[in-house]
Amino acid sequence: MSTTALTGIGLLVTHDAELGEIRDAALVIDEDRIVWIGASADVPDADDGTDLDGRCVIPGFVDSHTHVIFAGDRAPEFEARMSGQPYTAGGIHSTVAATRAASDDELTGHAAGLIAEMLAAGTTTTEIKTGYGLSTVDEQRSAQVAARLSDDVTFLGAHVVPAEYADRPDDYVALVSGPMLDACAPYCRWIDVFCDRGAFDVDQARTILAAGSARGLGLRVHANQFGHGAGVQLAVELGAASADHCTHLSDTDVEALAGSTTVATLLPGAEFSTRSPYPDARRLIDAGATVALATDCNPGSSYTSNMAFCIALAVREMNMTPAEALWAATAGGARALRRDDVGVIALGSRADLVALQATSPVHLAYRPGVPLIAATWKGGQPITA
Amino acid sequence: MSTTALTGIGLLVTHDAELGEIRDAALVIDEDRIVWIGASADVPDADDGTDLDGRCVIPGFVDSHTHVIFAGDRAPEFEARMSGQPYTAGGIHSTVAATRAASDDELTGHAAGLIAEMLAAGTTTTEIKTGYGLSTVDEQRSAQVAARLSDDVTFLGAHVVPAEYADRPDDYVALVSGPMLDACAPYCRWIDVFCDRGAFDVDQARTILAAGSARGLGLRVHANQFGHGAGVQLAVELGAASADHCTHLSDTDVEALAGSTTVATLLPGAEFSTRSPYPDARRLIDAGATVALATDCNPGSSYTSNMAFCIALAVREMNMTPAEALWAATAGGARALRRDDVGVIALGSRADLVALQATSPVHLAYRPGVPLIAATWKGGQPITA
Repeated sequence: MSTTALTGIGLLVTHDAELGEIRDAALVIDEDRIVWIGASADVPDADDGTDLDGRCVIPGFVDSHTHVIFAGDRAPEFEARMSGQPYTAGGIHSTVAATRAASDDELTGHAAGLIAEMLAAGTTTTEIKTGYGLSTVDEQRSAQVAARLSDDVTFLGAHVVPAEYADRPDDYVALVSGPMLDACAPYCRWIDVFCDRGAFDVDQARTILAAGSARGLGLRVHANQFGHGAGVQLAVELGAASADHCTHLSDTDVEALAGSTTVATLLPGAEFSTRSPYPDARRLIDAGATVALATDCNPGSSYTSNMAFCIALAVREMNMTPAEALWAATAGGARALRRDDVGVIALGSRADLVALQATSPVHLAYRPGVPLIAATWKGGQPITA
Repeated sequence: MSTTALTGIGLLVTHDAELGEIRDAALVIDEDRIVWIGASADVPDADDGTDLDGRCVIPGFVDSHTHVIFAGDRAPEFEARMSGQPYTAGGIHSTVAATRAASDDELTGHAAGLIAEMLAAGTTTTEIKTGYGLSTVDEQRSAQVAARLSDDVTFLGAHVVPAEYADRPDDYVALVSGPMLDACAPYCRWIDVFCDRGAFDVDQARTILAAGSARGLGLRVHANQFGHGAGVQLAVELGAASADHCTHLSDTDVEALAGSTTVATLLPGAEFSTRSPYPDARRLIDAGATVALATDCNPGSSYTSNMAFCIALAVREMNMTPAEALWAATAGGARALRRDDVGVIALGSRADLVALQATSPVHLAYRPGVPLIAATWKGGQPITA
């Protein structure tokens, strides 16, 4: 057993109701857990120590929505879209073709590179979805690759109907709900369906989610990105952990979320990169819904991996306060993954920490685009570039 | 004399009309200059070499509008503004007080930290303005600090009328045009006036710019940020190198810029951080005006130092293509500083280079918020973190 003390923390943002924000703070890490939190002057002896010189320390970011298992990129499609072409789910097919053609090693190396990029930028927990394989074998190997990199792997065979099933989508729903699910479930904690225009309708989504639930998987739903629809209502009805995107919500949708344990996960990188209107975070928060922020990191609609960037967008574009945006990017993400060991700094929580090159977390929005991550610890281990 | 070859450049973006973009390129640096450009297969012998493994190389960014000589920060003001309070020039006064109270060493250390942050993010040329001293002694020492860090120092005594001159602004104009200018001019290449609502009117601006011109300084104008006004017309009439902000332009303003050598320098970080409408870059470019992009790095209205972030904003919010935005952030900035040695990769130009962790410069907008700067060279020297 080896303990490490982090001292000289100018401002410690815990997201713990009792602890709140602590100035001139310190904490002690024992292996991968936080075992002491208090005033820097009172810190107990530890085997090692680091003085943070007044920096602000926050929980590591929890990115609860990513699609990092893929091959190829779609920079030309992005360029074309920025010249006025609309974004639809159809572009996914080119990534599916590249992903199927890639070896396991290529997929693993590419995803590991993105996870390393995220860690360097302060993201210590990352959910990873499958969904660019769309065949039993390619979804299974996507899930296997993801399981090497994350405890929160989501089976998203129902990302889009692949081209070979275009004229018989119900056969694809049967495949996803049956053999493909059987092949992937052992590697996954979650199942997700893209329930939106151009993807799966509410009946198809219900069938797939019910099958996943019967296999013991938790539920997530891509909902209401492209327009009003039944996705959010379905997520709430089935007790999904999260309804993701939530760009187009009716009053009934907002009320349903507010009265549920389903987190509204907002993905402003997608609206940024598709030049779409942003979701109304203010309306959700004011109604009492729980909001998370995530990157949606994927090669089509949001190829950012950077949670600080999403925080800045949330403040600028979605009328979240800097404090609300930080909470949503840490504790909110943890709620969306139904985890209580991350997203907060509390006794017994995982020592996933970020020291900012700043005296306040407001700087994450106040200094947009500037890499402010001075140091990251995951499970008590410092991350080195 | 020592030469270095950079080989294995997947894509070299030169911004040189003859060279254009070169695939599988190499270049040779001799001391601080580029002495050879061509196909990687044809590269001549050099004393040292670095293989860039297919990465894209672009000119170092030219940030032609910054205010990095200051003390303190205004995070609480930012937080308040994001809760709905409007931005006005008045907030400058709190930075003036902090800057006057800071020692030369504190000002130098803080500005050098920002310049280092910029270098690490690929910015190899940075214009620096005074303007938070607003007394002869504090403007002079601001200019002295800036001159240690940049060849392009701009005297901006006419940033705002300081509190002590609030009831006699013309006396302040006389001070700026006389003793303050005399004290600062030896350290400066440029003079600038904030000609806008709440700052200086067009007659005051003309007086100050004429005095600077008589001292041999080149002209720049903060123009049309807060509303329609005469700033852009004045800049064009006087042959200023740049009219900066250009958020609110009439058709006559656009025509004037298009028919002039005055660059329209757009600062989308300011609109991002003040939640203001963005300038219409498309209209300027389509009319034939030359557009530059810069950060406006300052503690009040745009505390980003990151040119890649500004490129992403320019593409998302101002309808610039990725190629136009990159040009504006490099060659455009050089035009705004009337320099032909930077912003391009050409024989004889300064070896200011950025290697991207990407195969294409489109990724600067396609992967917003992600630090993609794999390596930077300034004057042939590699920058190490």
